Amino acid sequence: MKVAIVGAGLMGTATCYPLSDNGHDVRLVGTHLDGDIIESCRERGYHPRLKRQLPSGVRPFFVDEIAQALDGVDVIVSGVNSLGVHWIGHAIGPYLRPGQLVVAVTKGLEAAENGDLLILPDVVYGELPEDVRDEVTLAAIAGPCIAGELAGRRQSCVVYGSRDRHAAYELAGIFRTSYYHIWPTGDLVALELCAAFKNAYTLGVGLAAGLLEQAGGVDSAGAYTYNLAAATFAQGCTEISRWLQIAGGVSAEKVHVFAYGLPSPGDFYVTTQGGRTVRLGRLLGAGHTFAEAREIMAGETLEAAEIVRVMADALPKLTARGIVAVGEFPLLQALVDVVVRGLPLDLPLDAYFQSMA
Amino acid sequence: MKVAIVGAGLMGTATCYPLSDNGHDVRLVGTHLDGDIIESCRERGYHPRLKRQLPSGVRPFFVDEIAQALDGVDVIVSGVNSLGVHWIGHAIGPYLRPGQLVVAVTKGLEAAENGDLLILPDVVYGELPEDVRDEVTLAAIAGPCIAGELAGRRQSCVVYGSRDRHAAYELAGIFRTSYYHIWPTGDLVALELCAAFKNAYTLGVGLAAGLLEQAGGVDSAGAYTYNLAAATFAQGCTEISRWLQIAGGVSAEKVHVFAYGLPSPGDFYVTTQGGRTVRLGRLLGAGHTFAEAREIMAGETLEAAEIVRVMADALPKLTARGIVAVGEFPLLQALVDVVVRGLPLDLPLDAYFQSMA
Repeated sequence: MKVAIVGAGLMGTATCYPLSDNGHDVRLVGTHLDGDIIESCRERGYHPRLKRQLPSGVRPFFVDEIAQALDGVDVIVSGVNSLGVHWIGHAIGPYLRPGQLVVAVTKGLEAAENGDLLILPDVVYGELPEDVRDEVTLAAIAGPCIAGELAGRRQSCVVYGSRDRHAAYELAGIFRTSYYHIWPTGDLVALELCAAFKNAYTLGVGLAAGLLEQAGGVDSAGAYTYNLAAATFAQGCTEISRWLQIAGGVSAEKVHVFAYGLPSPGDFYVTTQGGRTVRLGRLLGAGHTFAEAREIMAGETLEAAEIVRVMADALPKLTARGIVAVGEFPLLQALVDVVVRGLPLDLPLDAYFQSMA
Repeated sequence: MKVAIVGAGLMGTATCYPLSDNGHDVRLVGTHLDGDIIESCRERGYHPRLKRQLPSGVRPFFVDEIAQALDGVDVIVSGVNSLGVHWIGHAIGPYLRPGQLVVAVTKGLEAAENGDLLILPDVVYGELPEDVRDEVTLAAIAGPCIAGELAGRRQSCVVYGSRDRHAAYELAGIFRTSYYHIWPTGDLVALELCAAFKNAYTLGVGLAAGLLEQAGGVDSAGAYTYNLAAATFAQGCTEISRWLQIAGGVSAEKVHVFAYGLPSPGDFYVTTQGGRTVRLGRLLGAGHTFAEAREIMAGETLEAAEIVRVMADALPKLTARGIVAVGEFPLLQALVDVVVRGLPLDLPLDAYFQSMA
């Protein structure tokens, strides 16, 4: 197959490895932000952020060569981050051909004017040319997959979702290797909600490490704040499961399979093991305002904060419409209060875990 | 209230802190293995394993003073480990009085001859004198709670379970503090299954770090094996949810509340953050046989391995009886193969996450 990846960041590029190993014709297209990455790939076959040689047969393209890169491809992978999802539609739009598969690795969430949540594949859909967008099939990749591990050919388990279940199976067949295990699903919305919300809730888990700092650090007997991190993790899982229930169109059985499987606790778990979202949570937990933390982490994409910002707007609207009950998402509300409203951190632990008795 | 804790290990002793803070009369009774702990507590008010001063008003007792310690108490906490659950019944049996509450902090599992799983409070029940065992109420504590953090008065969220829901509420009222958040539940079996299985599955998560060692460690681009750990975590959550469904007597709604809440992913998460179960998994993942790992960790209680051993016996019986389907617990089976059957480690990733599509 011929596959083009648009966006030469970590995750987009990492998908080159299983594709190359499977013998596909792979083209890696940088965005306008990826110029030096593509230059390095061209000159040395080396991806400076991934810190690896590109696998054999992957051809790098600059953004102005996108027409050539997309020529005749069967699959286009959107490897841009959540800030690039509007751009990508316009960038690939003119070159789309009926029957192509468009797969997004981006994690994020937007909301409609009335508060309805919009998954990113649907945002991309809205940016595609009207005459072709119903002729291509949109899909997404989610699940616990640190890009550097996939590129290192470490064992990884992920989910490929599309409303067209057959397309999800087809994509799984194209990408699957002995180290890249893929489960196809038709529940695209559920998959994307897990992928987005696990980022927001990872911010919550990160708070515990910051609160530890604020309390003077590990005490003389060696006590951390893992209990609090774990309770936050569990409340995050609980709230993700509620979003799946609210989303509509997801069967009760599938809500549960996702809520205690790879898309929710699996992806959530790997995200809490480190990275910028945890670091942001730690700064907030240590008492920094979001503005201060934003400044300390200047230049980094804070997707979790973007999701919290979207939800700050959407939550009251969904509550007003009776879709969300008051107090149904106490952890998310606490994140909104800190990140968007600038209030001091106050985790309402006693409001967690309703209906446990 | 008057509360006696029998077993002066980490978790038993940690419960003294909220009890003391709530002004209760607290007695801490060492087992025959805790002699030097009680001596230190008597002489210096210092618990050498917890590395902390006992809180004010806690009176330490040697095991031969148990009659005096249990005199007139309202609540008895069993703080022994899973190897002590048969002993505890005999130790406290003669002093039980009708109306008392007996709370176990022990995590573990046994199985009946036919493979039926037995939660530890029911094992304790079987060891109590027949004339009084129906006159006391058994309960258990579970959820993500590292003892040293509770004793350090760090924020902790746990679940108190009893088939007598009213007793669970009563106990929660006795133990709850501003840092020790307690959710009472009537679903004792579900709670105890989560607490036991999360130990077994943490062994599975620990394998990833050992497999990393075996693969030569972190590679030059910084790739760990977090993706594999996360997939194992997710499969563990999935298998725990199935045990809750199989257990019977747990409503479908409650299965889910537990399976994506504090008892399952919450407790599982905290357990994977470190400790001897992770260490054992790491040794097995690195290629040691269980016998070798057992020797390297001589003297340590390996509760996870005990649970795997119990399940090695119970799984085929439950399968033969049609209660468990063949291949329904691929991760647990892989653990049985390594820990009990001495086979080389082989994680059957492609058998995970059935019914995802």
